[in-house]
This record gives sequence, structure tokens and C-alpha cells, in this order.
Amino acid sequence: MRAARYYGKEDIRIEEVVEDRCGENQVRVAPAYVGICGTDLHEYLGGPNLAPIQPHPVTHDTIPITLGHEFSGTVTEVGSAVSSIKLGQHVVVQPTLSCGLCTACASGIENVCYNGGFIGLSGGGGGLSDSIVVPSRAILLLPPNVPLRIGALVEPLSVAWHAISAAPLTPSSTVLVLGGGPIGLAVVQCLVALHTKKIIVSEVSKTRQRFAREFGAHHALDPKTYDIVAISRELSGADGPDVVFDCAGVPASIDTACRAVRARGTVVNVAIWEKEVPFNPNTMVFKESKFTAVIGYQRGDFQAVLDHLADGSLRPEKMITSTIPLEDLVERGVKALIHDKDSHVKILVEVGGNGS
Amino acid sequence: MRAARYYGKEDIRIEEVVEDRCGENQVRVAPAYVGICGTDLHEYLGGPNLAPIQPHPVTHDTIPITLGHEFSGTVTEVGSAVSSIKLGQHVVVQPTLSCGLCTACASGIENVCYNGGFIGLSGGGGGLSDSIVVPSRAILLLPPNVPLRIGALVEPLSVAWHAISAAPLTPSSTVLVLGGGPIGLAVVQCLVALHTKKIIVSEVSKTRQRFAREFGAHHALDPKTYDIVAISRELSGADGPDVVFDCAGVPASIDTACRAVRARGTVVNVAIWEKEVPFNPNTMVFKESKFTAVIGYQRGDFQAVLDHLADGSLRPEKMITSTIPLEDLVERGVKALIHDKDSHVKILVEVGGNGS
Ligand SMILES: NC(=O)c1ccc[n+]([C@@H]2O[C@H](COP(=O)([O-])OP(=O)(O)OC[C@H]3O[C@@H](n4cnc5c(N)ncnc54)[C@H](O)[C@@H]3O)[C@@H](O)[C@H]2O)c1
Ligand SMILES: NC(=O)c1ccc[n+]([C@@H]2O[C@H](COP(=O)([O-])OP(=O)(O)OC[C@H]3O[C@@H](n4cnc5c(N)ncnc54)[C@H](O)[C@@H]3O)[C@@H](O)[C@H]2O)c1
Ligand SMILES: [Zn+2]
Ligand SMILES: [Zn+2]
Ligand SMILES: [Zn+2]
Ligand SMILES: [Zn+2]
Repeated sequence: MRAARYYGKEDIRIEEVVEDRCGENQVRVAPAYVGICGTDLHEYLGGPNLAPIQPHPVTHDTIPITLGHEFSGTVTEVGSAVSSIKLGQHVVVQPTLSCGLCTACASGIENVCYNGGFIGLSGGGGGLSDSIVVPSRAILLLPPNVPLRIGALVEPLSVAWHAISAAPLTPSSTVLVLGGGPIGLAVVQCLVALHTKKIIVSEVSKTRQRFAREFGAHHALDPKTYDIVAISRELSGADGPDVVFDCAGVPASIDTACRAVRARGTVVNVAIWEKEVPFNPNTMVFKESKFTAVIGYQRGDFQAVLDHLADGSLRPEKMITSTIPLEDLVERGVKALIHDKDSHVKILVEVGGNGS
Repeated sequence: MRAARYYGKEDIRIEEVVEDRCGENQVRVAPAYVGICGTDLHEYLGGPNLAPIQPHPVTHDTIPITLGHEFSGTVTEVGSAVSSIKLGQHVVVQPTLSCGLCTACASGIENVCYNGGFIGLSGGGGGLSDSIVVPSRAILLLPPNVPLRIGALVEPLSVAWHAISAAPLTPSSTVLVLGGGPIGLAVVQCLVALHTKKIIVSEVSKTRQRFAREFGAHHALDPKTYDIVAISRELSGADGPDVVFDCAGVPASIDTACRAVRARGTVVNVAIWEKEVPFNPNTMVFKESKFTAVIGYQRGDFQAVLDHLADGSLRPEKMITSTIPLEDLVERGVKALIHDKDSHVKILVEVGGNGS
């Protein structure tokens, strides 16, 4: 079968590899659509980061590994001990890998697993191949009215769902989202699904500001033109937004987040950071505000996203800005995102799409 | 009457001043005991900081102002509209000044008031005088079995009570307290009052480590000798303390706090900071931990401390390491704390103490 394999920095090869066997508690999926994400670009440009150069504690794999962690597909084989999943079903795969042994796993927060990783980044196969074998517990059924193309968006939407679940939101909340990349835009959509009263996005790119408005942000503002702290306070009609999501992850965004949030409000950090940043805790102290961090998602977040896709309250179709075949992964996928990031939200790779 | 008046850096004078009139909603108190705190030292060494150089929005006072914000005393006059307070009662004064108009005040968090301040620091008189007139709502009654000397400790204990109330504590929690100054030691006592299972203190001074043990800390460790992150994890029997209180407020403490706290645990910042510090949000991200900040206290915190003093679950007597007369405020109070901080927890000034 074909697989897009990551060998190291700037080295991704579409190769023929042998299929894995499907164990008794496993399920074989033929990937249909696979999203390319910032993490993949990071591996390509500066990795290996997450991709294991020593045997990964959960998968025992080392590079080369198969890429693709945001995907939907069709069940093509079911392990003998699996009764809840049927051949031919349309599914998504929750790529979280956890050890089941560490203290985080023991307390049920596998997304924090100290030995964890992701299918499609840490070994264990990936969506960018004709076939992948995963544990049955990683499978969620795609509701009948949700196409496979949309299934590929469930993973980034689940990051956002997990993030908004960490915030004390109500329908009357005023929310500021810093950064309108795929994750910021996914947060906006989840907030819209919750009928959040006021959603303000700060984003430097004009194209992404437009995306933010299309997805339902009430205001999409350029931090180079506007004093985001002042205007978000004004728009909140109070002393600032109730919740600020940092989906940018730059020194300016953490500072804006902490200064903008209202007294006793919450900053939710969704970003992953490259290094230390200057931070003045007094920006939080004199307002008694909170800073909370999130990472990944749990099965419940995937299910919540699937439910909201099914009932139409999440409509992420417009996130798909291009669909390409597996052969074009590097040239029209990875490189397009590197050189023309702002015009894109998600580029999907159609691996075995059947038009649905 | 006598008053200790702050004129500016290194300039505190014990002077004769005229008593204020007692308005109809006010109460006159003859201060008995007054604690000296780090904030007073800051004003003395490097102020004016909080002390107003322009008319304060709430008190309309400018320096010179009377010092003393941690005090107990006896009621000597009651305004005509005040019915709940009687002459001769032993009381403590909650020194929070708030404007009643800002959005923080409107949401009931006067401790965050954007125009706020403190009696004894921002004008409006102070405890270090023979008489002070305060709004009746600032008064709390000292329970009959709590001496006036102990009443002077209610304010710093309320800072600590407010801080521990911001944390998701249970009796089975493992807690790490960074810094064993007056505030760190007050936090330890409040944790003991809640029967917290394991209290670990990190403090560089040997004397203060001893105080921490006397007040009930199960472990008082020197961060120069121990790797606090590693040992607190080991002592937690899990992946780290559930809650970390930063009562030190130095770059090393925020880093230790964020690295030590367990997955999904909470860092409570009690410290007030002098400047920006380097911060790596990833220390929180990959554990989904929280950072929450507190400032001051509310009336409920004062009442909780008084209740716990009355029932004997708080026994802060040993915090008082010296008692001096008003005349000796600078030499044996302020300067003793500056030059021999580690030997002291609280120095009390006896203004009108009657031996109780
Ligand atoms: N928590 C998780 O599990 C998780 C999962 C995926 C991604 N992430 C992280 O989330 C963040 C966002 O991911 P993404 O894929 O959307 O990244 P991205 O780089 O595509 O988007 C970031 C956006 O922020 C904008 N930006 C930069 N500086 C800004 C500023 N000062 N104010 C406002 N906007 C600014 C950029 O223009 C860009 O559009 C990244 O840090 C990523 O690592 C976290
Ligand atoms: N939130 C509030 O309302 C409030 C009220 C009062 C005080 N404070 C703040 O609380 C903090 C503590 O107040 P305090 O009066 O106890 O101050 P303090 O200076 O007496 O105590 C701080 C202690 O931290 C210790 N320390 C320094 N570096 C350390 C390290 N790396 N690890 C462990 N311990 C270390 C010092 O030895 C000292 O004993 C200060 O920042 C103060 O401004 C806050
Ligand atoms: Zn991704
Ligand atoms: Zn684990
Ligand atoms: Zn004080
Ligand atoms: Zn106010």
C-alpha cells in the first residue's frame, strides 16, 4: 500500500509499504480524507520534534513514520474481539496515544499522558496511507449525515471544543480570540455553536479576518490597527472580555490576553510555545484573573463535535480551502501551507475518498 | 492625638494631629495593637508607592498619611446612624477602600476595585494613632475569647484565607507553599485549620523553616539543598502537589510552582511582583494546569478567620515575635524588620493596648 512517510527535516516520501496485521481488538480503516496541520509543517521544516528518533514508549516505532493525524475513513476489517464496529462504517480516528500506566492516565486525563503521542506523528501508522490499523477504542462513528470530507475536520474542531470546555462560558459571555489560524477559527465555530453573545477575533492577516467573520465572529480586528485591550473592553460593555483564548502563542498575545481579560476572567492558553516569554504576573494579580492551559482532547470532545456536526450547529465546510491527491502532498499541500498560509485554513488530502 | 505619619521615603514621624469627626455612619476606634508589614517597609524604603502623592480617589488624601492597616482596637464613639456596634466593643478593621462605582465594585469584588486602596496606606487615617474614624461597614467584632493582640493578626491571616479559598483544596490535598514569610506562614496556618493532609514549605531561611514547622508544616525544605520539584512530587505520592502557593514572588518561585504542580493542578499566586519574569507557558500546557491570582480579601475572609480564631483551629500567637511602643516604631519596628527580617514574623506596635 501507499504511505506518506516522514524521514526527517524536509524529507517526506510517498512509498510502498506492507500493511499491518489487524489484531483482535483492532480495526482496519481505509483513510478517506486527511487534514494537514501546523504540527506537520513543524516536523517538515524543523523536525523531528514529535516524530520519534528513539523507540516511542507507546508505539515502539522510530522514524520513518507515516504521517496524518486528522482523518476520516471507512472500516475495512474488524478484529475478532470487536463487536461494536461494522465493516463499511464511516469513522474518524481519535489519534491520542497514551500509556495507560502513568499518573495522568491513572486519573483519566490521557491527553496529558507523560508517555503519550499521536497516531500519525509518533508511529503506529498514519492517515496518509491506504490502510491503517488502530485500537477499536480510537474509533468514533461518523453520523450518517456527516460526509467523510467533514470527518477530516473533527480533530482540529476537537482541540477547540476541548479548549472552550475549559472556560466558564455562558451564552452571554464576551470572548476574545487571539489568532485566526485553523485553531482560532475552530474556536470561533465552537463558540458560535454555543450561541456565544459576542466573539471578537484579533488577527493580523486580512484573509484570516475575513474567514473569522464568515465563521460567525462579530468583530475581526487587526492588532496593528486597533488597541485590542481597549477595544475589547469597550465592546464588552464592562471591564473586558470574560474569556480570552490565546490561539496565537506569541509574546504579544499572552500580554494582550492577560491585560484584556476582565477582573476574575479566564485566559485559556491553546497555543504551544517555542520558548520562554516575558510575563508580568501583576497583570493577573490586581484583577484576580486566571490562566488555564489545555492540550489535545479526550474522547468526549470528539463525540461533542460529532453531535454538533450532526445537528448542524457546527458547519465547518468552508475550512476546506483545497483538496489534493496523496501524490501532491508535499508540493501542493505542505509547501502551499508554508508559502501561502494565510489563504488557507485546511488543505485536505484525498486518499481514498469516494466522493462522499 | 499621636499618629505615625508617612511623609515619603525614610521619613516617618510620630506627630500630634487633630482627631477626625465621627460621621453618622462611622465608628471611632482606639487602636490597640498594629502589625507592621512588608508593604509598610516598601513605602519606607522605596516609596511612596501606594501612599498617594495626588488626592486618592476614595480618601481624597495625599501624603502625609497615617500608617497602620493591620489592627485591632476598642470602639470609643459610634455614629448616630449605626446601631449594630456598641461603645467599648473590641473590633478589627477591614482596611479595604473601594469606590463603589467601578465595574469590579459593581460585580461585588471590591478587593479588585480599580480606584481602591487601604486604610493606613492610602489615607483615611491609620491604626498607628490614638484614634481613627472608619465606616461602620469596615468593622468586625472580635469574638470574646480572642485577645486584642491576636486581633492585629487577622489582616494577614485574611490574605491567606482569601488565597486558600481560591484553590480547589480537600483534606487529602498535598500542598506546596513557596516562601515562609508572614504570608507563607499564614497560608500554612490556614491549611492546618482545614486539616490539609500534607503541607510542604520551601524557604531559604533556617529560622523561617523552623517557624513553618512550628505552625504545622509537615516538611520545611531549603530550595538550595533540595530539588523542590522532585521532592514535592515524591512526597505527593503522585505526580506532584495538587496546589502550589507562590508566597515568594521571585523568578525561581514561579518556575518551581509551574513545574511542581501536578497535571490539572492549580498554582495560586499570592505574591505581588516587582517586574516581568521569564515564563514558559508550556510548563502549564502539557499538564493542563492552572494559574490563578489573588489580591487582598473580602469581608467573608475576615469573618472566616475570626470564626477559626474563636474555635481555636487558628492559633497564630507565635507569629508575634516582638511588641513595641508607638515611639519605637521606626527604630525597633521598621528597622528591625529591614535588618533582621528572618528572626521576625510580626512585630506589633502596642498603641493603646490594655493588656488583653
Ligand atoms: N492545545 C493543543 O492541543 C493544540 C493543538 C493544535 C495546535 N495548537 C497550537 O495552537 C496555536 C494555533 O494553531 P494554528 O494551527 O491555528 O496556528 P497558525 O500559526 O496557523 O495561527 C496563528 C495565527 O495567529 C496570528 N497572530 C500572530 N501574532 C498575532 C498577534 N499578536 N495577535 C493576533 N494574532 C496573531 C497569525 O497571523 C496566525 O494567523 C499554535 O500555537 C499551535 O501550536 C495547540
Ligand atoms: N495578595 C495579597 O493581597 C498580598 C498581601 C500581602 C503580601 N503579599 C505578597 O506576598 C508575598 C509574601 O509576603 P511576605 O510579607 O511573606 O514577604 P517576605 O519577603 O517576608 O517573604 C518571602 C519569603 O520568600 C522566601 N524566598 C525567597 N526566594 C525563595 C525561593 N526561591 N524559594 C522559596 N522561598 C523563597 C524569602 O526567604 C522570604 O522568607 C510578597 O510578594 C507580598 O508582596 C500579597
Ligand atoms: Zn493537527
Ligand atoms: Zn500515560
Ligand atoms: Zn499588610
Ligand atoms: Zn471600585
